[in-house]
Amino acid sequence: MALVVKKFGGSSVATTEKIMNVAKRILNEKKPDDQVVVVVSAMGKTTDNLIKLAQGINKEPYQFTREMDMLLTTGEQVSISLLAMAFMTLGHPAVSMTGPMAGMKTDSAHTKGRILDITPERVHKELDAGKIVVVAGFQGKDDAGDYVTLGRGGSDTSAVALAGALHADSCEIYTDVDGVYTADPRIAKNARKMKEITYSEMLEMARLGAGVMQPRSVEMGQLLNIPIHVRSTFTTHTGTVIREDYTMKEEKDYVIRGVAHDDKVAKIAVLGIPNTPGIAHEIFSALAAAKIDVDMIVQSIRNIEKNVTDMVFTVSTGDLSEAKRVVDKVADKLGAVAVLVEEDVAKVSIVGAGMLGNPGTAARMFGALCKAGINIDIISTSEISISCLIKGAELEKAVNAIHDEFFND
Amino acid sequence: MALVVKKFGGSSVATTEKIMNVAKRILNEKKPDDQVVVVVSAMGKTTDNLIKLAQGINKEPYQFTREMDMLLTTGEQVSISLLAMAFMTLGHPAVSMTGPMAGMKTDSAHTKGRILDITPERVHKELDAGKIVVVAGFQGKDDAGDYVTLGRGGSDTSAVALAGALHADSCEIYTDVDGVYTADPRIAKNARKMKEITYSEMLEMARLGAGVMQPRSVEMGQLLNIPIHVRSTFTTHTGTVIREDYTMKEEKDYVIRGVAHDDKVAKIAVLGIPNTPGIAHEIFSALAAAKIDVDMIVQSIRNIEKNVTDMVFTVSTGDLSEAKRVVDKVADKLGAVAVLVEEDVAKVSIVGAGMLGNPGTAARMFGALCKAGINIDIISTSEISISCLIKGAELEKAVNAIHDEFFND
Repeated sequence: MALVVKKFGGSSVATTEKIMNVAKRILNEKKPDDQVVVVVSAMGKTTDNLIKLAQGINKEPYQFTREMDMLLTTGEQVSISLLAMAFMTLGHPAVSMTGPMAGMKTDSAHTKGRILDITPERVHKELDAGKIVVVAGFQGKDDAGDYVTLGRGGSDTSAVALAGALHADSCEIYTDVDGVYTADPRIAKNARKMKEITYSEMLEMARLGAGVMQPRSVEMGQLLNIPIHVRSTFTTHTGTVIREDYTMKEEKDYVIRGVAHDDKVAKIAVLGIPNTPGIAHEIFSALAAAKIDVDMIVQSIRNIEKNVTDMVFTVSTGDLSEAKRVVDKVADKLGAVAVLVEEDVAKVSIVGAGMLGNPGTAARMFGALCKAGINIDIISTSEISISCLIKGAELEKAVNAIHDEFFND
Repeated sequence: MALVVKKFGGSSVATTEKIMNVAKRILNEKKPDDQVVVVVSAMGKTTDNLIKLAQGINKEPYQFTREMDMLLTTGEQVSISLLAMAFMTLGHPAVSMTGPMAGMKTDSAHTKGRILDITPERVHKELDAGKIVVVAGFQGKDDAGDYVTLGRGGSDTSAVALAGALHADSCEIYTDVDGVYTADPRIAKNARKMKEITYSEMLEMARLGAGVMQPRSVEMGQLLNIPIHVRSTFTTHTGTVIREDYTMKEEKDYVIRGVAHDDKVAKIAVLGIPNTPGIAHEIFSALAAAKIDVDMIVQSIRNIEKNVTDMVFTVSTGDLSEAKRVVDKVADKLGAVAVLVEEDVAKVSIVGAGMLGNPGTAARMFGALCKAGINIDIISTSEISISCLIKGAELEKAVNAIHDEFFND
């Protein structure tokens, strides 16, 4: 007997036909003694449509966060009821539960809540009664008894947290890809599916642009030590298990775990600033005040005699115009020569705990880029990653060159 | 200071524009110290659309009553969140509550629940904090914590019950008509709006075909002694107050309170049955087993020498084909000569507690029909009503003739 939590996202339950397919698949794979909990998101575009409806009342409905949560939680409530009906239509007892019914307690940070505690007594009771339990992802309730949604990727987090609270044997996240790849398979010709990856590496991959899993759900898995099996909605192949440590030697032996990339990056260069104490603080506190995240930062000397410096950094493209506005003001005040913006840039990164014991890893990465004739603009590193900013047009070539360097076996 | 409960139905909140209009109207009418609770139904056709969605999973989704309640309660949850946002957009604090949040406790009869108790502490708390409280009608939760819907007319019942629990000063039901009329104004040229009507008379009017209010909500008002003000969504005119007893002499002084009619009636005649004990029981227990309500019943002697009798009764047109099937079988067994069905019939009724002390009332009704040249087929009476079955084609003439007889002042 195993207790399994399975999570299906909005695209997997976008129509009643797809909901029936999810139910059929789960019943096909279920062993007679298995206890199954299914966590689902809202159907397809439901959440977007509800937001549009609210915009008919007020163009900025998110100012009413409590009411937005009241509104948006109906999306999952619709899909859980339909999926439970689908199981029963196929002859298996089932019961749907909203997040609160399943015991999901959150803080009161409406539209971006955090799970504080789960008291899943009723889930256990229904499982013990032989039912498949269908739980609404993305939602819980706070102390006042109000609905709170968890923000982006919340359904994955619900599933992992529930698996932890239920002491589940596994937590399976069904997505439109069949696992985590060593690089984005749409770009890297030789990308391969990993069998395993550690929480830390997965978090670093996600931070650096790999979109498979939302970081919060991986953090939750790490916190509760719940292995997360990422697999495809459309095939029955084994996917990738995210866990504390490797169980398979062949996965552990790679120097790096994957190549991540991010093309939603823009570069801002503030040139010719008089190099006095506090200029970095001046620029980056102004950006922080505007809630703009800065990623890679390089300060370099422009003219040593005149003591003039350049400050170069990256922001996400979505923040670029606001960042430019903020920086222009500060640059003016500091007496900078110019503020330049470059949008055709991209970041390519390698991730892997293995590089800690392999001092030549960075050199191999730079060498691969050099051999491919790609110039590196900025380099930044973390404990388990190295990132290079390059020309956007060279991204595909760069990902393939680095991937082939490390995974050419 | 007054505590007012106002209920708006699905057509009043069918679009975001209409929701804004409801909010504006309520704020216009609200005195600064008033405490206002608004009970709303699902937007327009939402419930129908949700049922269609469920039919994509199973053609008979109502076999899964618990899951249908889980599904259908989302309809009101959407409208309460939008209406609360509308109040806040217009500058007034507001908060939405599902039925369970407002303390609506029901039995576990999913899709046709009954309210057992209301614990509206949180409603009071939010009202005392200066907020307009928007409550989802039609829903509550049972002891297990599951959603239960109240069945047809449930939102009216929610509003009246909540008004009772809150000791509200008034309960206003907004509809697409502006009150209760002495007869259906689409048929009776001289129909006039009543200022008041008693619960008992309203219940009898509803039972006999007047469609303004669902009987259960009137019963709830009677039980809790909450006056119900039925009024129009589209005008600010005073409507009709349903209450225990009259407060206005001019309303009390009418002999009858109104003329009701029902054209969804069919007549079944079982002719030439040997008149032995138990034949009525035989026919009507067969109909009861098939869950068919029988209304007017007349047994008359066909042939006194042969001791043969006729049994004539009415059912609603929706039940006619099933009733005919059931009755044909029994008639065959009883050796009846024939079973005749007549669909072109209608029932016209007068209602009024005043007729108890006015023995000539029935005679006046029959006289009015006679003067209009209308033949009466069947007559039935209750304590506060008299009904006549007539030809369907003569219904309009009958309603006007009777109405003019009693309201010609």
